[in-house]
Amino acid sequence: MVNRLKADLIETSRFGRTPPKRTEGYDQLDPEKGVTRPTGTEENKQIRDFAVSRMKEIGLEVKIDKVGNIFGRKEGSKRNKGTVMFGSHLDSVINGGMFDGALGVFGAIEAVRRMNDEGFENKRPLEIVVFTGEEGSAFIPSLLGSSVLAGKLSVDEALSKKNAMGQTLGKALEYIGYKGSLERGLDDVEYFAEMHIEQGPILDKEGIPVGIVENITGIIWIPLTILGQENHAGTTPMRMRKDALVAASDIISFVNKRANEMVEKLGSSTVGTVGRLNVFPNGINIVPGKVEMGIDIRDVAPQNMESLKNEALKAIKDIENKYGVDIRTELPFRHIPTVLSSEVVSVIDNSASQVDIMTKRMNSGAGHDSQNMAGKVKAGMIFVPSVNGISHAPLEWTNWEDIEKGVQVLTQTLKNLSQLN
Amino acid sequence: MVNRLKADLIETSRFGRTPPKRTEGYDQLDPEKGVTRPTGTEENKQIRDFAVSRMKEIGLEVKIDKVGNIFGRKEGSKRNKGTVMFGSHLDSVINGGMFDGALGVFGAIEAVRRMNDEGFENKRPLEIVVFTGEEGSAFIPSLLGSSVLAGKLSVDEALSKKNAMGQTLGKALEYIGYKGSLERGLDDVEYFAEMHIEQGPILDKEGIPVGIVENITGIIWIPLTILGQENHAGTTPMRMRKDALVAASDIISFVNKRANEMVEKLGSSTVGTVGRLNVFPNGINIVPGKVEMGIDIRDVAPQNMESLKNEALKAIKDIENKYGVDIRTELPFRHIPTVLSSEVVSVIDNSASQVDIMTKRMNSGAGHDSQNMAGKVKAGMIFVPSVNGISHAPLEWTNWEDIEKGVQVLTQTLKNLSQLN
Repeated sequence: MVNRLKADLIETSRFGRTPPKRTEGYDQLDPEKGVTRPTGTEENKQIRDFAVSRMKEIGLEVKIDKVGNIFGRKEGSKRNKGTVMFGSHLDSVINGGMFDGALGVFGAIEAVRRMNDEGFENKRPLEIVVFTGEEGSAFIPSLLGSSVLAGKLSVDEALSKKNAMGQTLGKALEYIGYKGSLERGLDDVEYFAEMHIEQGPILDKEGIPVGIVENITGIIWIPLTILGQENHAGTTPMRMRKDALVAASDIISFVNKRANEMVEKLGSSTVGTVGRLNVFPNGINIVPGKVEMGIDIRDVAPQNMESLKNEALKAIKDIENKYGVDIRTELPFRHIPTVLSSEVVSVIDNSASQVDIMTKRMNSGAGHDSQNMAGKVKAGMIFVPSVNGISHAPLEWTNWEDIEKGVQVLTQTLKNLSQLN
Repeated sequence: MVNRLKADLIETSRFGRTPPKRTEGYDQLDPEKGVTRPTGTEENKQIRDFAVSRMKEIGLEVKIDKVGNIFGRKEGSKRNKGTVMFGSHLDSVINGGMFDGALGVFGAIEAVRRMNDEGFENKRPLEIVVFTGEEGSAFIPSLLGSSVLAGKLSVDEALSKKNAMGQTLGKALEYIGYKGSLERGLDDVEYFAEMHIEQGPILDKEGIPVGIVENITGIIWIPLTILGQENHAGTTPMRMRKDALVAASDIISFVNKRANEMVEKLGSSTVGTVGRLNVFPNGINIVPGKVEMGIDIRDVAPQNMESLKNEALKAIKDIENKYGVDIRTELPFRHIPTVLSSEVVSVIDNSASQVDIMTKRMNSGAGHDSQNMAGKVKAGMIFVPSVNGISHAPLEWTNWEDIEKGVQVLTQTLKNLSQLN
């Protein structure tokens, strides 16, 4: 039964496949599997069109809302009961993997196909959703479509967001034919379920095919700029330097060391990362005058996240004094941690038992549209393993047998949710 | 008398002046004074043309060699005695300062004007040289023109070097009209003198107008690549990471700390810098999978330079093991330290006394064409102060009164050298 889903995923991995030329600087990675389809690109349109045609094939009524979210609805026998919504996203990061998001959309379509095949009659309405701009790789903020759907961001604000070329989301959606007219809220929706790859190593390492997510991590991003003194690397004595990169190194080391200590001492799920760093003017023989960088801090426990943030800001002050540089931090960007619905967690758990599949309760270290949905409806997530924990990279992979188990749990979960009184 | 030179330098600072738009990322710097004229650009042609016309105005016979070095010669009364050559370069780094190189060329022209004005009759031939590609900002290696003149690099090798656009030096010189036919060596040359800005803070800090260079620093460049594991910053637990940037930070800190220790404990002139660093894929939410960087180590004492290099390579091995990353170092690029001619140092010293200008004997932390010349002829260098030690940046500045003193010492030095038997 998984073969239809496998075929869909392989077919769609052609859309935006990163050509080997694009992978310069990534030579440790297999260039064959990467995909690039940020919101509003031709490749994003291709995979959206494919999903819409698959939804229509199985009799779903497809509508597009004003920010390009796609809905595919199947009415239930009890249309006055709250809808069961499920789905994920089709946009990708630059040179990302073929499963991130796409699995949740085509897995949702496969679940409906299976219910149709066995003549299952849903009581509550079932509605697939494809969210616009989950990754934030074209339009910031990330989780854009679900933010609008959940009422956290207005349609006008969302449509005015610009990509790196200065094009608005509104124009980009018009260009690909996905600027719809539907105005959809969540008042009629009661449940939400999303299947997604874990994007981390835990399930793969423990050999468990399905994870049931209880919490989604909070995120704090601290963008910062270090201003030192650009100068000649040969003629500036060590004692007369204000080297912005030496100061940056102390910050990187601090964040890494402290996050590791918190994990060891508190047993927490804290992570701290400096993933982005640009040096100016970036010449081998020039003392760096400026560094721009960003710190990413996450934990499902808000107090751990805040504590690491505060310690990092204090360390930054000390480093500023130590090296005589000027460090400017921007207002941190923040997603608070999300607790998913214990009711949906239980339904997923029971559903997995019904189809005899082993599961593990866990947290999500990545952000997901489910966290926006959880503010309005009862939301849950189903994870499948990522081989070696790799994601947002061409080597992202999930074994087909795990995908089959994930779809079985999702299908059973949707059946159970749709029959709830 | 300095006003002619001041006028020339101000006039030429228009060529390749960095427009304010180009200075994004340099907002701490005054954008008005930056210049960009790498070898082979239209702006490089403009300043070359200007220098050639100035040389012809004062009766010099101008010739261009096969790699674009410009020579302006004035025969002496004793043409069988070895030539006194002097000059510097006209190419610049990207967004550099208006004095670096240009001062040495237009200072040389001004010195000839002064000798002409006072009817000085030189015994030895005098010959100005403008070296091609000193900075290496378009064609690597740096010191290219003097390397060819001194026989360290063949004409064919030099002409086949490519810039970032893939254009060869040969094509670039043809394009700007500076691919000459002269084949010049140094067999007939006995002395070389170069006036240059210090590019460091020592003279400015001590309030001394002229430096006499005794040694030019050696340089070791170690380019290296760190391969870690690119991954999702939210879902990859701290203990399962191979973060290339965390490893890079340890290397940066080590080089900085150890160079500082050597200065403190040995009183050495050691400097160690990481000025270039690129992170891949460079996303705030992605654990860095790869870092490319370069270490710059300098000292006038070869044993200090070697010792820091060897300690850095050992530290890199330890860091590789500590973080489980793979660190590949390229064969280090190396200039050995150069001792300048004690005879020329004495002549400069005496010349400065004759014109009553205070000097300080010192070392050069930057590389210069003089180091290539020193392999073949008796070479010396005259430094003038750089305000706050700043160079290779738009804020590079030298006060006009110091420039006047530098030219006076240069002129007297050339007069004395040209009369030596």
